[in-house]
Amino acid sequence: MPHIDLPPELPGITSAFAFSPATAKPMRELAEVLLRGPNTLTSGEREMIATFVSSRNECLFCQDSHRAAAAHNLEGDYALVDAVKDDYESAPVSPKLKALLAIAGKVAESGRDVTNADVERARANGATDTEIHDTVLIAAAFCMFNRYVDGLATFTPTEPEIYDVMGKRMAQEGYVRSGQQR
Amino acid sequence: MPHIDLPPELPGITSAFAFSPATAKPMRELAEVLLRGPNTLTSGEREMIATFVSSRNECLFCQDSHRAAAAHNLEGDYALVDAVKDDYESAPVSPKLKALLAIAGKVAESGRDVTNADVERARANGATDTEIHDTVLIAAAFCMFNRYVDGLATFTPTEPEIYDVMGKRMAQEGYVRSGQQR
Repeated sequence: MPHIDLPPELPGITSAFAFSPATAKPMRELAEVLLRGPNTLTSGEREMIATFVSSRNECLFCQDSHRAAAAHNLEGDYALVDAVKDDYESAPVSPKLKALLAIAGKVAESGRDVTNADVERARANGATDTEIHDTVLIAAAFCMFNRYVDGLATFTPTEPEIYDVMGKRMAQEGYVRSGQQR
Repeated sequence: MPHIDLPPELPGITSAFAFSPATAKPMRELAEVLLRGPNTLTSGEREMIATFVSSRNECLFCQDSHRAAAAHNLEGDYALVDAVKDDYESAPVSPKLKALLAIAGKVAESGRDVTNADVERARANGATDTEIHDTVLIAAAFCMFNRYVDGLATFTPTEPEIYDVMGKRMAQEGYVRSGQQR
């Protein structure tokens, strides 16, 4: 049961967005820029960072929806997304992405936990300042989205098919629907 | 020393906003709507919630700048802001605001920590669904802003006068400067 009177037919953050369109607009725009804007990190990589942070924060709705969005950006490779989520150091991804995931994991706890050594590791593996910036902000933003979704106790579907459909739409159409939010 | 090459003359989040205008735009807009948009909670009350969460997250830049913004929304009453920040249950604020601060404190840890009893307490003291929603989102958003500021190790001034000037501008002009961000 959600803590406030949210539209019952909508899952997760979409019910909160419907409740508060004025705050939904910048939040949708932020997700769009962070996860789908022009970037040297692929949308698949960025969605995996979002999934990983949501998993650390134990937000089931965000975790499962962005897991599906990541997979649909990676030709359906759910196994890769799960490998990153469960143990990224042993996952078959680049040393750069591993170093960025380490930073994201620190940010999920506290921004103050990120050390010079964390940043040096990322840079030594080819990460640019912009990639480090974007990783910190994706992790920080999902600490917001996760808390928003769970702090209101929004409706969390359990059926994997629902998330697969949702993730496909997120990967294909993004977070800002034309004519609706802009 | 910031972790990435941020403009050295700018403090805190303003240096990160200058580094990344595309993400600054929705973040500024979100702060504006949350803290200064039409609302049954005053901007002073909302800035105190932001200060309280930033204090829990130990983000000095956000804590001191929003403390000053709160005070400038409350006729300069820094003592009230500090009372809320340090021990809100004994502070001279309404029972409703105390109940909302309790929710904000839970969200700062995890959205999943908010209980039905927390929400019932707020409602019993007159909080509306919109006020509960806004409190959850202000707390969640500052978990983002705090992590963004500290995750990049942005420059944190220590002089109280700097924050007083900054807070006055935040209270009077807000977070979206015309001609610059819109």
